[in-house]
This record gives sequence, C-alpha cells and structure tokens, in this order.
Amino acid sequence: MGNWEKSLKSVEPYVPGEQPSFTDMIKLNTNENPYPPAPGVKKLLREIDTDMLRRYPKVDSEELAKGLAEEYGTDFRNVFVGVGSDDVLGTAFLTFFKGKKVPILFPDVTYSFYPVWARLYDIPFETPALDENFRLVKEDYYKPNGGVVIANPNAPTSIAEPVSVIEDIVKHNPDSVVIVDEAYVDFGGETALGLVGKYDNVLVVRTFSKSRSMAGLRIGFAIGSPKLIAFMTAIKNCYNSYTMNTLSILCGAECLKDRAYFKESVDRIVNTREKAVKGLEELGFKVLDSSANFLFATHKSVKAREIFNKLKEKHIFVRYFAKPRIDNYLRITVGTDAEMEKLCAALKEILG
Amino acid sequence: MGNWEKSLKSVEPYVPGEQPSFTDMIKLNTNENPYPPAPGVKKLLREIDTDMLRRYPKVDSEELAKGLAEEYGTDFRNVFVGVGSDDVLGTAFLTFFKGKKVPILFPDVTYSFYPVWARLYDIPFETPALDENFRLVKEDYYKPNGGVVIANPNAPTSIAEPVSVIEDIVKHNPDSVVIVDEAYVDFGGETALGLVGKYDNVLVVRTFSKSRSMAGLRIGFAIGSPKLIAFMTAIKNCYNSYTMNTLSILCGAECLKDRAYFKESVDRIVNTREKAVKGLEELGFKVLDSSANFLFATHKSVKAREIFNKLKEKHIFVRYFAKPRIDNYLRITVGTDAEMEKLCAALKEILG
Repeated sequence: MGNWEKSLKSVEPYVPGEQPSFTDMIKLNTNENPYPPAPGVKKLLREIDTDMLRRYPKVDSEELAKGLAEEYGTDFRNVFVGVGSDDVLGTAFLTFFKGKKVPILFPDVTYSFYPVWARLYDIPFETPALDENFRLVKEDYYKPNGGVVIANPNAPTSIAEPVSVIEDIVKHNPDSVVIVDEAYVDFGGETALGLVGKYDNVLVVRTFSKSRSMAGLRIGFAIGSPKLIAFMTAIKNCYNSYTMNTLSILCGAECLKDRAYFKESVDRIVNTREKAVKGLEELGFKVLDSSANFLFATHKSVKAREIFNKLKEKHIFVRYFAKPRIDNYLRITVGTDAEMEKLCAALKEILG
Repeated sequence: MGNWEKSLKSVEPYVPGEQPSFTDMIKLNTNENPYPPAPGVKKLLREIDTDMLRRYPKVDSEELAKGLAEEYGTDFRNVFVGVGSDDVLGTAFLTFFKGKKVPILFPDVTYSFYPVWARLYDIPFETPALDENFRLVKEDYYKPNGGVVIANPNAPTSIAEPVSVIEDIVKHNPDSVVIVDEAYVDFGGETALGLVGKYDNVLVVRTFSKSRSMAGLRIGFAIGSPKLIAFMTAIKNCYNSYTMNTLSILCGAECLKDRAYFKESVDRIVNTREKAVKGLEELGFKVLDSSANFLFATHKSVKAREIFNKLKEKHIFVRYFAKPRIDNYLRITVGTDAEMEKLCAALKEILG
C-alpha cells in the first residue's frame, strides 16, 4: 500500500440531526414541516412525462428561477438556485470568501455549518458573541472583515432581529458581501429582500425545506444583485453544470403557484408554536422568543441533556447541542398540535 | 458602491452543450440516451407517497447506494453517490487533489471539465499528449504526480484503452489517487472495477446520465476502497449533508432493478452506432473507433465547423470543440436509427 493518504486534509464535517425511522416516533429534531408539500406536487409527479428525464435539466433551472422571480417581485437575473440552502451558502462561501486574508464574521451561536465551510475553504473567521439574551450586537460587525453572515431568524436560537439591524450592518460593510440566511423567515421574521435593490452586496438565502415542506427535494435559492448572482453562477458552473434535477425544478415551480396552501400551513405552524410555548412554560421551561418553526428552550431545574435522552427513549426526537453557552437548551421543531401535545405529556412524565 | 468585487477570483467555467428546444430538432450534442428511463421509474413516480418529501432524504442515499453495491458486487462502504458524475468528480478533486504541489496528470485531449476543477481549487496540472491516433501513452503517467485522471472510454475521442493499460498506470502510482472516469463504459469499454479490490487508491466513477437514460435526475457514483470513499464522504459532508434528493435516490434504485431493459437499450445504441459509422464512412468521414454512445468524426474535405453550422441550420445539433488537435472533428451522439438516418441524409445534402 502506498502513501496516497499522507497529504490528505482531515476535516470535521457538520453533523445533521439524526434520521431515525421508528414507525411510532415523533420527529422534532430537523425542523421539517409537519404538513405535506402543496397538492399540485402530487398531481405533477403523477402526470409527468418520464421520458424527458433522459435529457439534461435546463442549466438555469428555468421554470423554478422564473417562478421565484415572480413570487418575490424581482428579475430572473437576481435569482440563484441550488441543492438546498446549504449548497447555495456553500457556493457563496466559495465565491465570495475563499482567499480572504481578513476574517469573515458570524455570531458565536448560529448555524453550525458556517465554520465548517470556512474550514473547508481555508477562510479565516471570527465569531463575535451574541449578548446574554442571544441578541445580535450589530456594532461587532462594523470593523474590517472578509465578509459577514447573519442567520435571521437565527438558528438554533429562533430569535429574529429587525431588518433595520441588518441594514445597519450592510451600511457599514460596503466592501464586503453580507449574506442574510433567511431559512426560517416565513415563520415570522422580517425579510432583508427589500435591501437587495438598494445594496448590490446583500445576498438573501432561502430554502424550500422548512416553510415549503420540500426538504426531500433539495431546493434552496438566493436573491441578490445581478452582479452577485453572476459571480455565484460562474463558480457553480466551474463545479457542476447541472446541480438541479428536472423533478425538483418542476415540483419547486409548482409549489410556488399555491400561495393559499403555503399561507395556511405556515399559519398552522405559527399557531401550534404559540400553544406549545405556553405548554412548555407551564412545565417550567424558559422558551426564547421564536420567529421560526422551532423553539429553543431550557428547563429551570432539569438538565437539557437528561431530558433529551429520556425523550429519545420514548422515541421522541429533539435536538441537543453539546456546545458552549447552549448546552442546557433543547431545540424543538414545531410539529402538529397532536405531536406537541404528546411531547408535553412525555415531558410531564420525565419532569415528574 | 463599495469594493466588494475587487478581490473576487475570475473563473472560466466549463461550457456544456447547448440545450435548444425546437420541436423538430434532432439533438445529438450532449450524449443523452435516445430511449426513456426504465419503465419502473414511471410507475414509481405515479405511486409515490409525496407526503414523505417534507422529510430530509437519507443522508447516505441508502436505497441507491445499496442497489449499486448489489449491482456491482461490492459493499455499501465502497460506494459514493453524487449529483451526476460531475459532482462525484468535483468532490474527488477537492478531496484528493486540493493542496497538491506536484501537478496532477490527465491527457491533453479529454473531458474538458478536468482543467476547470483544477483551476477552481488551485490544483496544478499537466496534460501529457495523446499519441497521433489519440491513444493514451501510459509511460507519461509513470512520473511523480499529485494524482491521475483517465477517462476510459475517453471523451470526446470515444476510444477505449484496455484495462491492462489502466492497471499499469495504477501500479506505477501507489502514492497517488488514480481516478478512472467510466461515464461511457457501458457502451463497450473494459471496466477498471476489478482493480478496486486490488488497489486501495483507484476510484472508478460512473453516471446514470448516459447508459441509464437519467441525465435529468442527476445521479453519479464512485466505487473505490472504503478508505477512499470515507475521505470523500467526509469532504462532501463538509459541503452539503444532503446532496441527493429523495426522488433521484428512489428512481435510481428502481432503474437498477431492470437489468433486461438496461441491456436492451444499450444493445440498441451499440447496434445503431455500428450502422451510423458505416453511413458516415460512405459520406467521406473518418470515424474513430468508438466504445461510447457517440462518434468522433472528421471529414476528408469539408471543415468540421462548416458542417456543424450547416447542421444547426437544419436543427440538427452535434458538438464542435474549437480546441487544438480536435478542431476539425465533430462529436455526434448516437440517437435512434431514424435520427441517424436523418443525420446522414442531411450530411449528404450539405456535402453535396
């Protein structure tokens, strides 16, 4: 055996929530939507001409990108489509941050894929601390940097900042690309899409995996100035001409057409969330103010890790992060009313 | 406006074949399969429970990876799945070649994405020349290098080398990863899969886009030692936990089950290819010896570019590369018998 292994880089990947498959489980650990995709998607797959699958997809994901431009009142040239928002964010890191000598900035408590992409591409980074209430300290982003990434609402905290805070950060960073990761915005956050027309260095990233119930189809997108999008498209085309498959393109476009269904399922989740907050508070939890489809909660007396493990024994899966500052919190996806009631009943048993 | 653009890298992407959409066209320019995917795929999409699409896919593409392991007589741990073979190859470049100081090696005339990935990741490369008959000179790969990439059958030449040549190259490179890109092997090449058990540094890469008629679903895979696959999986998980979508995973697994259909459609294409070679030779073309689903042909008197443009006027699309050594050749995908007859009729008119 030779020496080919010797020079390979060792990496520490992002660890996604587990995907257990018990038939009786309640799965509240990966922020999936408890409701199915828009009914049009089922119809589309039932009627699709599968012969067309022998052809390559459209290189620009035409139907989907055009649908997004229409939905968000912008132009086709302002839209980038990728394999989930992770692909979109990863491409943005590679495009805008690789090669930077000055550190890029993102909060100490945020989506844990950001440091993974930074390490993958040897991008230096710094992580200004959120304040003691897990709120963003905007002034920390006013110094020279290689780029800025803000998740809003933030994960795993669920807290949304007003868009004025984002705009203040953008105003102080004319020489950097500012990425606003809005994976959860449809559940109550204020969007930064309005900044895209004003600043050519703001990239808003979204996903179909949460509010649009399509995690399985891997669809994410970004909206930004045509200049930003052109840079990303060129880099993406240096990696893979066809990242989006034909079925995801068509199902994604179909899903956008049904605004009523979208609004209805988001409203249901928000409604369930507010009830669940009350239920958890009655059980002695402190729950952060959520603008997402998940709750971030800590109990006044029982350790989060203990609760996490005991829930797991009952086949109820939530998310626990053994990380500084948040290792006594649970991240709980908002499921259906029935699921949240079962969760509360199980917690009642566990907490005695 | 700020200075954010200043430091961005300028890139030169791979240019895929055009995707025209005339209703009367004959599309022989991107090596797609003229026959539809296995009939089971249609049935699967018709009956699928779309509710499951709200869930993330299985992170290890379970059904597909297990299906591939079974089909190719290997273990699940020997299989890597990606978004087309471009994603698989791009991941392999990033995993095994990024950071190399000694140039990686691939032929001067081969798949034109290799230099694009090398430039994207700042990997130095050298391109030993194929001989005057476009055959590989194996001794050119016996020197110190950062890695080796061989497409076999080669594109765009269509020529296959015996697997003994590949093994000789592998034997001389115990300290490098050797990638064998077998996108077209099902149409007549000798596979290097037999080397995977003998050498832990050989990675064989395949695609569902050609012989399996599923370019639209973006499925590629690699088979290699568990050690190689583990390195690639770790890097992939640093980029995107879920690159494969649920529908592609299930349709890909379904397609593998229908061996009879697979064999039948490959045989038909090989049969059409042999007839098309004769037809082209009668029209004054020299056609390289093809083991792929395309032909690489040059005419004794009329320039390739001229023929390419005149075919285009007739809505017949083939591929032309304005590149050294091959700028008087056309790459022609093997379509149906009827399509190839129409092509020959059109060529007869063009050539007078």
